[in-house]
Amino acid sequence: MFDRKMTELGKERSAIRELFEYGNARKKQIGEEKVFDFSIGNPSVPAPACVEDEIVRLLQTEPAEKLHGYSSAAGLPAVRKAVASYIQTTFGVPMSEDLVYMTCGASASLVVALSALLRAGEEVVVPVPYFPEYAVFVDAAGGKLVPVSTDERFHLDLGAIERAIGERTRAVLVNSPNNPTGAVYAEEEMRALGEILAKKSAEYGAPVFLVADEPYRELVYGEPPVYPMAVYKDTVVLYSFSKSLSLAGERIGYIAVSPQCGHADELFAAVCGAGRAHGYVCAPVLFQRVAAACLGMVSDVGAYRANRDLLYTALSDMGYACIVPEGAFYLFVKTLEPDAKAFAEQAKAHELLLVPSDSFGVEGYVRVSYCVARETIERSLPAFAALYAHYRGARGDRRAPFRRK
Amino acid sequence: MFDRKMTELGKERSAIRELFEYGNARKKQIGEEKVFDFSIGNPSVPAPACVEDEIVRLLQTEPAEKLHGYSSAAGLPAVRKAVASYIQTTFGVPMSEDLVYMTCGASASLVVALSALLRAGEEVVVPVPYFPEYAVFVDAAGGKLVPVSTDERFHLDLGAIERAIGERTRAVLVNSPNNPTGAVYAEEEMRALGEILAKKSAEYGAPVFLVADEPYRELVYGEPPVYPMAVYKDTVVLYSFSKSLSLAGERIGYIAVSPQCGHADELFAAVCGAGRAHGYVCAPVLFQRVAAACLGMVSDVGAYRANRDLLYTALSDMGYACIVPEGAFYLFVKTLEPDAKAFAEQAKAHELLLVPSDSFGVEGYVRVSYCVARETIERSLPAFAALYAHYRGARGDRRAPFRRK
Repeated sequence: MFDRKMTELGKERSAIRELFEYGNARKKQIGEEKVFDFSIGNPSVPAPACVEDEIVRLLQTEPAEKLHGYSSAAGLPAVRKAVASYIQTTFGVPMSEDLVYMTCGASASLVVALSALLRAGEEVVVPVPYFPEYAVFVDAAGGKLVPVSTDERFHLDLGAIERAIGERTRAVLVNSPNNPTGAVYAEEEMRALGEILAKKSAEYGAPVFLVADEPYRELVYGEPPVYPMAVYKDTVVLYSFSKSLSLAGERIGYIAVSPQCGHADELFAAVCGAGRAHGYVCAPVLFQRVAAACLGMVSDVGAYRANRDLLYTALSDMGYACIVPEGAFYLFVKTLEPDAKAFAEQAKAHELLLVPSDSFGVEGYVRVSYCVARETIERSLPAFAALYAHYRGARGDRRAPFRRK
Repeated sequence: MFDRKMTELGKERSAIRELFEYGNARKKQIGEEKVFDFSIGNPSVPAPACVEDEIVRLLQTEPAEKLHGYSSAAGLPAVRKAVASYIQTTFGVPMSEDLVYMTCGASASLVVALSALLRAGEEVVVPVPYFPEYAVFVDAAGGKLVPVSTDERFHLDLGAIERAIGERTRAVLVNSPNNPTGAVYAEEEMRALGEILAKKSAEYGAPVFLVADEPYRELVYGEPPVYPMAVYKDTVVLYSFSKSLSLAGERIGYIAVSPQCGHADELFAAVCGAGRAHGYVCAPVLFQRVAAACLGMVSDVGAYRANRDLLYTALSDMGYACIVPEGAFYLFVKTLEPDAKAFAEQAKAHELLLVPSDSFGVEGYVRVSYCVARETIERSLPAFAALYAHYRGARGDRRAPFRRK
């Protein structure tokens, strides 16, 4: 009856959103505290104080008709300038305010940047597992997603990437810190990737872009990640303040095109055009200004680190196999049966909401979003233990089915 | 180098945005008060007090991590319920919260609704003149815009619409109060349109949808317009709070699918899918709640009415030909030479920023956005008079070139 693709997308929903909605309904049924909702990456720590301070300051000092009016499509000039200056100062790379495009968050950044970059049928190489909406956005931009394997720690398999790049490859899309694995690519890893891209660009006589999706940049438990523009010239950085400032629902982020990109101005024009075609008139203005005022501020990463340590240790001790996350707020756990969807259904019986890995492009895992209250993790542990016992019992086998810590 | 269509869209920009940017640059050059910027529909009266009150109340009462977190893709349940209840109570039509989808403003509503409705190559009939981005959005949704003429007061030419509807017609898109003409379609006009759509739907055995783009609904100087769902069943209403609450930069609006639509649930699923494909994760949450709290509140329409009266009377008295606007905040003025772009360029020499009508789908007019400070209009009048004199003098003809009031 209606656009087939859109109807299917709407009916299916993402596995994450599906579970999120199920969780909301289930909480109403049996009480919020009885459901262990690890489904969605909704920040659990409050926005830093600067957010509220800036909102109040703006309300008190700016006339409402100026404060809430349209900005230029690419954003308020002062905000773009602040972002460019922040990138330049913090990461030591050249950046120009003329190449900063404020967006309605990371998903908007992805759709707009991919629509600008991709010509019909061009390919985007993406390491697995990946954020499921990448497939939707690459498809919406008329491109083709080419998944490539990663190593046993979910870090880049550089050989696989090099082999996957062909003459139709337009970009390699990386997400570090990674959703859903928590992997943070090391500087040497990113530099090696840059070298491969440079080599392949020369080989095919056309740039292979590095598209870096970085909403989790500040949420790391070790070394801060290298800035992608520092390792490769044809780079587009996609950023969102959703996680760093705990503003996921306010839809505010940006696209930064490296001034070292070939034809950077033309690419930026294509970004503006893509924003226009997708109906993005401008990014929400109040939060443009809030974000600019809070550049460099970060929500309490310590809370996420404590959650990570608690959850990782407890689950590993129970016998679950998982890799310790280096960043973001997700734990990727091997399932106790090969079918991740069936495992996630079984987990529901214990009121554990875990996202099966199939839509992330791999089989046999669940994603556990630990951006929740610490007490939720504490109270969930008996459920995780019972889930483990269910499988161990069901198999009549007391050994853990996978590698133990 | 990049996606051709996106690059062109980005380089061209809309005529409105182009002039808006020119105005911003020009104001820096010669001073804000010397430029008479009638380019953009940026509300000039402040948001009603309820907006700031609600923001402050929410900051004081809601935990930040809840307040700024993701909502469901279609919006916060309480907000959708409030919108549905408001529509039902205010307009006396059935409405369901399950058919309300909160959006990032009117442009997002258009892109998402059109992407949901249109199958490849289907046509959308649009009365001229029309908001220029309609062409961009219909194209982005894979459809074809079919312009139809209007009468001498820019009201619907029902015969022309009936003739334009063919077997490939998916929808008629109307915008009342109208941008750029200020026309507000009368109830009998809308009822007659509904009858034509019902007749044509029966003839072709498939619904021809009424898509009503209504960001100016409350900005009227006479009778309030009939609610589109009251005149025709297969109706989708697109709404934005940009104008009614003077929140143009905050990007908040909604799509309401009539429960009387055939296959309404399926259409709503397609709307959700289209939102997903275009990267709209959810509408900005703080302003979802602000909008819900301020339903039925409207910025000071009296200020716009006073501007309309002043500008219309002054320009008519000078000799300009224009129709008195019944709503919105635009005056559509006949140009004093056939080429509207040349006329708008000439106006720039008098520091008057007027949007030429070509991109609205008609020739020989300029749009004057009178959502400006009253003093701007007052100070601009000598410039309008000088512009008129330029043409009258240049022609060596003391008669007005077009119909006088």
